[in-house]
Amino acid sequence: MKTVVIRNIDRADAVAIKRLGVLGTATVHEAYGRAGLMKPYLRPVWAGGEAAGAAVTVLVHPGDNWMIHVAVEQCRPGDILVVGCSADCTDGMFGDLLATSLKARGVTGLVIDAGCRDVKSLREMGFPVWSKAISAKGTVKATLGAVNIPVVCAGVNVEPGDAVIADDDGVVVVARKYAGEVAARAEKRHADEEAKRKQLASGALGLDMYNMREPLAKAGLVYLDEPETD
Amino acid sequence: MKTVVIRNIDRADAVAIKRLGVLGTATVHEAYGRAGLMKPYLRPVWAGGEAAGAAVTVLVHPGDNWMIHVAVEQCRPGDILVVGCSADCTDGMFGDLLATSLKARGVTGLVIDAGCRDVKSLREMGFPVWSKAISAKGTVKATLGAVNIPVVCAGVNVEPGDAVIADDDGVVVVARKYAGEVAARAEKRHADEEAKRKQLASGALGLDMYNMREPLAKAGLVYLDEPETD
Amino acid sequence: MKTVVIRNIDRADAVAIKRLGVLGTATVHEAYGRAGLMKPYLRPVWAGGEAAGAAVTVLVHPGDNWMIHVAVEQCRPGDILVVGCSADCTDGMFGDLLATSLKARGVTGLVIDAGCRDVKSLREMGFPVWSKAISAKGTVKATLGAVNIPVVCAGVNVEPGDAVIADDDGVVVVARKYAGEVAARAEKRHADEEAKRKQLASGALGLDMYNMREPLAKAGLVYLDEPETD
Amino acid sequence: MKTVVIRNIDRADAVAIKRLGVLGTATVHEAYGRAGLMKPYLRPVWAGGEAAGAAVTVLVHPGDNWMIHVAVEQCRPGDILVVGCSADCTDGMFGDLLATSLKARGVTGLVIDAGCRDVKSLREMGFPVWSKAISAKGTVKATLGAVNIPVVCAGVNVEPGDAVIADDDGVVVVARKYAGEVAARAEKRHADEEAKRKQLASGALGLDMYNMREPLAKAGLVYLDEPETD
Amino acid sequence: MKTVVIRNIDRADAVAIKRLGVLGTATVHEAYGRAGLMKPYLRPVWAGGEAAGAAVTVLVHPGDNWMIHVAVEQCRPGDILVVGCSADCTDGMFGDLLATSLKARGVTGLVIDAGCRDVKSLREMGFPVWSKAISAKGTVKATLGAVNIPVVCAGVNVEPGDAVIADDDGVVVVARKYAGEVAARAEKRHADEEAKRKQLASGALGLDMYNMREPLAKAGLVYLDEPETD
Amino acid sequence: MKTVVIRNIDRADAVAIKRLGVLGTATVHEAYGRAGLMKPYLRPVWAGGEAAGAAVTVLVHPGDNWMIHVAVEQCRPGDILVVGCSADCTDGMFGDLLATSLKARGVTGLVIDAGCRDVKSLREMGFPVWSKAISAKGTVKATLGAVNIPVVCAGVNVEPGDAVIADDDGVVVVARKYAGEVAARAEKRHADEEAKRKQLASGALGLDMYNMREPLAKAGLVYLDEPETD
Repeated sequence: MKTVVIRNIDRADAVAIKRLGVLGTATVHEAYGRAGLMKPYLRPVWAGGEAAGAAVTVLVHPGDNWMIHVAVEQCRPGDILVVGCSADCTDGMFGDLLATSLKARGVTGLVIDAGCRDVKSLREMGFPVWSKAISAKGTVKATLGAVNIPVVCAGVNVEPGDAVIADDDGVVVVARKYAGEVAARAEKRHADEEAKRKQLASGALGLDMYNMREPLAKAGLVYLDEPETD
Repeated sequence: MKTVVIRNIDRADAVAIKRLGVLGTATVHEAYGRAGLMKPYLRPVWAGGEAAGAAVTVLVHPGDNWMIHVAVEQCRPGDILVVGCSADCTDGMFGDLLATSLKARGVTGLVIDAGCRDVKSLREMGFPVWSKAISAKGTVKATLGAVNIPVVCAGVNVEPGDAVIADDDGVVVVARKYAGEVAARAEKRHADEEAKRKQLASGALGLDMYNMREPLAKAGLVYLDEPETD
Repeated sequence: MKTVVIRNIDRADAVAIKRLGVLGTATVHEAYGRAGLMKPYLRPVWAGGEAAGAAVTVLVHPGDNWMIHVAVEQCRPGDILVVGCSADCTDGMFGDLLATSLKARGVTGLVIDAGCRDVKSLREMGFPVWSKAISAKGTVKATLGAVNIPVVCAGVNVEPGDAVIADDDGVVVVARKYAGEVAARAEKRHADEEAKRKQLASGALGLDMYNMREPLAKAGLVYLDEPETD
Repeated sequence: MKTVVIRNIDRADAVAIKRLGVLGTATVHEAYGRAGLMKPYLRPVWAGGEAAGAAVTVLVHPGDNWMIHVAVEQCRPGDILVVGCSADCTDGMFGDLLATSLKARGVTGLVIDAGCRDVKSLREMGFPVWSKAISAKGTVKATLGAVNIPVVCAGVNVEPGDAVIADDDGVVVVARKYAGEVAARAEKRHADEEAKRKQLASGALGLDMYNMREPLAKAGLVYLDEPETD
Repeated sequence: MKTVVIRNIDRADAVAIKRLGVLGTATVHEAYGRAGLMKPYLRPVWAGGEAAGAAVTVLVHPGDNWMIHVAVEQCRPGDILVVGCSADCTDGMFGDLLATSLKARGVTGLVIDAGCRDVKSLREMGFPVWSKAISAKGTVKATLGAVNIPVVCAGVNVEPGDAVIADDDGVVVVARKYAGEVAARAEKRHADEEAKRKQLASGALGLDMYNMREPLAKAGLVYLDEPETD
Repeated sequence: MKTVVIRNIDRADAVAIKRLGVLGTATVHEAYGRAGLMKPYLRPVWAGGEAAGAAVTVLVHPGDNWMIHVAVEQCRPGDILVVGCSADCTDGMFGDLLATSLKARGVTGLVIDAGCRDVKSLREMGFPVWSKAISAKGTVKATLGAVNIPVVCAGVNVEPGDAVIADDDGVVVVARKYAGEVAARAEKRHADEEAKRKQLASGALGLDMYNMREPLAKAGLVYLDEPETD
């Protein structure tokens, strides 16, 4: 019942995706109400990579990357490929040949809840990948999965077309329809943070800037000049 | 009984801390009798960072970084902030705003038994952090912990004012009163190692330099020219 | 029965090892029938390191690196040291002094199913290491193991003299007698991939290049224009 | 945007849920096309527990179980409570008081992507729980989450009202609308397996029963009487 | 500086330890201000074991159980042995011979941040053990550690003589001087819980019993009759 | 090159295997020079199971249990099936139908470096299994592996016909040709331990029985009556 490829999906607004990408995962995650963050075991295979795109989703099975080949055809410029796996797997399901193909189609990156290989080439190509493992382990092409159905990847349910933002801090997913709204909120948050950064850099204390002293005292925090002796 | 902030702590000698920092964690750990090393799951969030300082300690609870804000005020130039958590947590409790504030106060780095975010900014700021995870996950400010009480961080009990040395090999803690003594022993060890390094580089064998052949033979080591056949 | 050092081992052909090293782990692993790959928890301690060599094998016990010192003497130029441990251990059993000694003997790298330290120095020396952990934790020299017996390292049984190839994607081991044959097959595979890379870069689809459309349809893959509504 | 409690949810057919519960997770998972299985790190806190029910879903944050208290009120006889957490957490968010309350309301069990405590009492009460950890760690009640929104729990996206089946083999989730269809297929599968079990018990080989010999030969399997010598 | 055995230690009050043991880890941990809980990776090697005692502490090194033999002599009736290890280790450092010896001395149980073996015999003897792993792996007796110094075990700093309570929910440590006070508070808590348990069993809701409705509304919780449609 | 089934293997002596089975893994592992022990992540799927047999080995790939079906035919009474996997996998590759078939052939148990399902039935059948995970996850039958070639399982290289002993403490493998010799040594060790157990039960100290006091003093152990004050 799930061995399907959905061809036409609605994608999050391309401009909103770009705005989100500029802001980064930490700010977007906060602006989205602290939602949508993938588990931190997903890590960039090379440091400094950043990507933002509309999700094309893939469901694969352990040891088998057949559906990633199928998914390539469904990608458009500005997409990001998101691969979920039906069980834990560290095999290197993705490498530089698939990356070459995705890059040729304008795909911005890959997020995979499994392993990746050819990381040196990927770094040289500048194609960013977030994966659970790095492994040279090859896979077979024998079992069907699906493309563009909702897929759980590293703890987040990703719908086709959702906005996906990824950087050194991880991967965050914003539901398609909220992309614009969250971008606006994230931009406001970013502006606020810039002001705070300046204050903090000049020596102001967060305790004062955020008015924490009173709630801390109310919650029962006590300041002592010395540790209590027994 | 633990929601306190201790304001006046005795710190390890600043000169001893600097001497320890120059020598690095591996040498200090050996000179300290192979004690004081945090678990290796703590890793620098950017490679090459190094820090040494007197510990200001913080106890936080999962998902809540309120006490880190409280702790900032207790830091002086040359301190390093050490954060323990009452249960396993990977949330990104620390980011570039807090780092800006700590840097403004002359703090040399952060060691946290939880997650960290904004790692790109931290690398650009040159503010070194050792953490258990990298995660954009935000936290709340709702539950009290404590500042400057003894805190277990990554398997080591850290007392406020202890000397903390951190680099690419991990994090080591030397009790306040032993900092000078350990620095002296570590410097001697370092000097010895320099001499050994030269000998080894010129082809000498550790087996001979360390006089291991006799104890090995006594322990029963046998040399064979070929594997025994069945 | 295992506290032995075997002095004379047969090594894989040096030229074959070099050819394998040029091709890298992912290609070699595929050419070897997807065999010989160590578990992905082994990671290079500094990014970009690459090594290929004939295995000198060591069996150590947790917390004890005595046998690594013994093994150094058995190494020749072009060898790679492979260390298995009789139980899980993250201690830093290997550091820059041992690396200096191995480098002086022409050893190309180290693969260790335990921890490593002095990673900054190792990076500066250009001596590549693949380990399970980075840890400043020192070890004792009290218990015998063995050198040049078959050793399981990170899930692979390594025989002395086997060809070992290591890079950013992991570590792969090719049995001594197959080194030449696998090198030939890997070179052919590499040449084929170059051609494919060009096609893919110009926009060709793997679905067509690998003739996947028919087997996919036969397996039951269905294309839909829209998700089915309930 | 997510701090809501949805009061009226459609539940999977109660009879279908019971039929699925009788068959167990392995059979249901197969009949559902090998979908819907939670990660195997979820384990029953006492062996032999079994539960089936319609999902009432809860989203909580690390270290905070406030929303579980809120969710209790939304439960009806025959429900099963499914708790997802916004980040990794092992705290004991659920214990015997909450279990007493759920039992009083006719709830059949709990599935939680976090920790559980009071396991001795839970075993004595016969209230089954599947959790990620067992931990006495207490939690606060300070941060809102949600009840009866879609929640990812241990790698599966659970919609309110879905059929949840749990036993010693794990936890499987069947979408509400497919519960009846999957029950029918699972019953057929179960009947088939009974027949096979008898044949296998009497010495028949799966190779023959499943007609595997021909496809194995076609795939290239070779039988040798002895290992090949070098 | 740490290879010592301290012979005379002050122990927590024996009556207070027994009272704490009756109440169990979850209640004690709460009464102690949610402090003192060891990490949940420590598990009982047989279900249902319970122990309470005054801590005799041991520091060992990976792969070496020499100091446990030394520690036996320091134990008195009513003690519990607590073993910390200087680095991660799963070796089976403790088995039925050591348990026989401890039982002969009236020791109530063992808590070890490493592995344990002979679990079948331990179950038959009724000697309870909490460990990080079960492993038949034997250890050597070559390296000194210490007895009755402060030891970090599974994330908690244990002082000799502290009260240690262990059951199916884990292990909690109460500082020696607070044992009586915490016992009193825990007993009160237990009595309160009994009353609550009855109310909940009769169908009362925690939302009402704990007066949560108002703070939930104030925090912004919204009840909806149906999910919002897009 | 590895898709073969070897039909005729030499098996360890059946009597030796039985003698080893009586003694258990901890004793056998010690008698074998502390070798042959699988990693402790392999656990019995039901407590109390015990098995001893001659290894029939299987190599499978992640997500695919085809070769286990092939291996059944190669099993004789007194064998134990040992399954290695070419990469990390937790799928439930083995369940009650395969167990029924193996039981019909007189196989004593299964050791699998992957997942297992139907654990309730396995417990009821009394068929013992040691696995890395329990998971209802089903597998496909698409990729060839091998039967009766050397296979690494949970860190040990197992040759076809080796003696395999498994119980609550784990799994130990003794090379075929050493089975008798190790059985004799293990029996002697067992007899020695019985005597020691009696002494220890009557209050004798290991420190005296094993003559440890002198070597401890020589190594530098110091006894103090009180902790040193600063």
